[in-house]
Amino acid sequence: MEEAQLEDLVAANRILAEHGVIDAYGHVSVRSPRDPQRYYLARSLAPERVTAADLMEYDLDSRPLDAAGRESVLERFIHGEIYRARPEVQCVVHNHSPSVVPFSVTGVPMKALYHMAAFIGDGLPTFEIRDVRQGTDLLIKDSSLGKALARTLAAKPAALMRGHGSVVVGENLPRAVGRSIYLEQSARMQMQALLLAGPGGKITYFDAAEVQASISRQDYVRAWPLWRDKALAKLNEKTWSVPDL
Amino acid sequence: MEEAQLEDLVAANRILAEHGVIDAYGHVSVRSPRDPQRYYLARSLAPERVTAADLMEYDLDSRPLDAAGRESVLERFIHGEIYRARPEVQCVVHNHSPSVVPFSVTGVPMKALYHMAAFIGDGLPTFEIRDVRQGTDLLIKDSSLGKALARTLAAKPAALMRGHGSVVVGENLPRAVGRSIYLEQSARMQMQALLLAGPGGKITYFDAAEVQASISRQDYVRAWPLWRDKALAKLNEKTWSVPDL
Amino acid sequence: MEEAQLEDLVAANRILAEHGVIDAYGHVSVRSPRDPQRYYLARSLAPERVTAADLMEYDLDSRPLDAAGRESVLERFIHGEIYRARPEVQCVVHNHSPSVVPFSVTGVPMKALYHMAAFIGDGLPTFEIRDVRQGTDLLIKDSSLGKALARTLAAKPAALMRGHGSVVVGENLPRAVGRSIYLEQSARMQMQALLLAGPGGKITYFDAAEVQASISRQDYVRAWPLWRDKALAKLNEKTWSVPDL
Amino acid sequence: MEEAQLEDLVAANRILAEHGVIDAYGHVSVRSPRDPQRYYLARSLAPERVTAADLMEYDLDSRPLDAAGRESVLERFIHGEIYRARPEVQCVVHNHSPSVVPFSVTGVPMKALYHMAAFIGDGLPTFEIRDVRQGTDLLIKDSSLGKALARTLAAKPAALMRGHGSVVVGENLPRAVGRSIYLEQSARMQMQALLLAGPGGKITYFDAAEVQASISRQDYVRAWPLWRDKALAKLNEKTWSVPDL
Repeated sequence: MEEAQLEDLVAANRILAEHGVIDAYGHVSVRSPRDPQRYYLARSLAPERVTAADLMEYDLDSRPLDAAGRESVLERFIHGEIYRARPEVQCVVHNHSPSVVPFSVTGVPMKALYHMAAFIGDGLPTFEIRDVRQGTDLLIKDSSLGKALARTLAAKPAALMRGHGSVVVGENLPRAVGRSIYLEQSARMQMQALLLAGPGGKITYFDAAEVQASISRQDYVRAWPLWRDKALAKLNEKTWSVPDL
Repeated sequence: MEEAQLEDLVAANRILAEHGVIDAYGHVSVRSPRDPQRYYLARSLAPERVTAADLMEYDLDSRPLDAAGRESVLERFIHGEIYRARPEVQCVVHNHSPSVVPFSVTGVPMKALYHMAAFIGDGLPTFEIRDVRQGTDLLIKDSSLGKALARTLAAKPAALMRGHGSVVVGENLPRAVGRSIYLEQSARMQMQALLLAGPGGKITYFDAAEVQASISRQDYVRAWPLWRDKALAKLNEKTWSVPDL
Repeated sequence: MEEAQLEDLVAANRILAEHGVIDAYGHVSVRSPRDPQRYYLARSLAPERVTAADLMEYDLDSRPLDAAGRESVLERFIHGEIYRARPEVQCVVHNHSPSVVPFSVTGVPMKALYHMAAFIGDGLPTFEIRDVRQGTDLLIKDSSLGKALARTLAAKPAALMRGHGSVVVGENLPRAVGRSIYLEQSARMQMQALLLAGPGGKITYFDAAEVQASISRQDYVRAWPLWRDKALAKLNEKTWSVPDL
Repeated sequence: MEEAQLEDLVAANRILAEHGVIDAYGHVSVRSPRDPQRYYLARSLAPERVTAADLMEYDLDSRPLDAAGRESVLERFIHGEIYRARPEVQCVVHNHSPSVVPFSVTGVPMKALYHMAAFIGDGLPTFEIRDVRQGTDLLIKDSSLGKALARTLAAKPAALMRGHGSVVVGENLPRAVGRSIYLEQSARMQMQALLLAGPGGKITYFDAAEVQASISRQDYVRAWPLWRDKALAKLNEKTWSVPDL
């Protein structure tokens, strides 16, 4: 990849951590711009520590091309199988977005009610891992589970994962990152709206035409340079050098 | 404008971002002190990055006087049309205040219950864009939508915008900034009070005399110098210089 | 006052701001150690900017002994009248503690359910300013209102002020500061407990013996040196020097 | 202990404070690697100030081996009695985790609904101190109360303490620290899920097989080095040196 693209992916890791969408866990990948059968994903490392040296290249079976002793993320199959199933997708985020998890364990559907997260549309699917395998630790640790998640995602921009988090995709990296950030914010807003409205109360969600009109625009182009520059600036700060005790 | 006034507007951008009232989006303008038919608004840029060089002058049709290659904010018509309709208004804030959005999509009216936000009075209007145009992306992208929003606002200090955010105005800049900050805080407090009181429970809102007695005083004069100095001090910090990767 | 006592009061201003108990408003005073008919309170200034030079001395009628051109806090009568009514009180905090305000506008009583805020006991009184004067801006702007508030407070450690905030007192400064911080935290916990329990659900509050056993101990002695040192260290940081634009 | 182990314990104090699981109170201990009848715990000090020099060694009766004038934590009996009762436990955390306290005062059981906190399983016990002693300040100030708490904990990974906080244990230090952090997060998620689902609404909790499959893996190995390095880096920052006023 070009240096700017590597920087984008490094920045994406740190942006998502900074916004509380991922903590030490969660991951973000990009499809290789040279070869659509390949993708880049950091080695198993807390996202806010990721640098360019930590990025690894994978094929769509999620085998590393040159591991060089680096440990791969267990759930990399999420990425490989979604890139296989969705040729237009260029970026995949897997997160434990804290306000999204409560929706994933109830029957309450997320719906678009905030223009920055209009991509939610008339709802997002929830992946119930029990439908394909019993007694798991909920992690997507092989291709078979990755394929099942990709089937649940289908053509949607995101899918909730029951008791675990969500997966968010985009036709470019800023879109997937921005969607992840605003999915979290929209989840909080919808919880609050549901409490305000009360049982049986009315909430005005986006209608189909509003969703359609909004999506084309939402590449978060004003936010992305701000997020990226702030994230990369932190790379230079030496806050984590460990002193002698 | 005078340098101090430019600084006020730069500070306002950063204050609102710092308080979580706006994120990379949202904007704040001031009417020109020289010509009431003109206003100043930053170019399309994340508010926490705005410096004096980013401020542009507009007429009330929201045409830039000297764009100099700078991109204008899409929703500048909010500002132009409110300055046209409300001669006493000197400052307009448009934000996506997160605790206000849930009120905008339900029928629950915001009401004054906290003395720092007494300006809410007996309620704020909500702009439903569908009433004037179907199938939009909810953005105020032309004068016609700006005029409709200004009609909804009427003589009020603020109006909610369904599924989008709010617009807050003031007879001076600190007032509009302070109102934006305390509108967000009051929204949170009202949500909590409604939950505490439960369905049919009683909440003591401000009565008309209390609202009247409070408004004249609320220019947030003790807060403004603190907010302004902290915001401008950050201008000097070089936290966002991007290092080599 | 001794230098250490001045430092305590400066620190108290900044600690309360740092913990979100007060913002640019709110104030904290101490009774003079030399003369029980006097108290110290900062001039009208955002608490996180207060230094020793901003501290002013007042008599119990809340008249400054030597204003030296400095503007007094409008609501200083809160302090004077409570010191008059409560000889054992050495420190008074007035705040707009955000999670306490929702209780102040509903009939739901705060009660002790967390050992760090056991001082709440079987409830705190709420000052309804309308009971003594109609159509105010809710501020305690004269001795008459100050006396009424002190009557509502009676012998309690704190009183809520409807639509405004609360007043918290202590037999020493760390106690009043700590009570303010844990009152806010306990308010949040009680709201959450009420939501969890649901209408008619059972919550285990402290019984009278537990309240009695807890209060003697709660001077927050482990927290105070941490809070104080962090607050005073910030005095030296030059984060707010305003650069040229 | 080895230097790295001392560092781990110092780091654990600061990590828990940084994550809001403990404030100036709360404490964390480790069993001595040399002698299972001994444990290490910091002297009575706010956790975010703890350095290696503050660590004290205790026997299982919670008597310090060499106090050297340092004051012991009042509630050290929590640690001693749990190490006595649970030979496999190597680390004990006592905290006032704010989102856990509301569960402790209601009859609502915490249950596993998020894979990062699967250790909650089908529920955690709540220690009601009144069952063993009336009229206390809720503190575990002697061996008898410590033993009663250990009996309530039994073989579980954590126990809530009514109106007070919780105790969390682990077979190693990162596990106990990580469990404390994710117990707080899971409490927030469960509150939100309960509100979303509404009275009688359905929430999908982990089933027994999922709990079993998850627990073996949860040592928070990706998070621990990040948490540890950030915590120890702060040791070197001189933010708390107190300036002259």
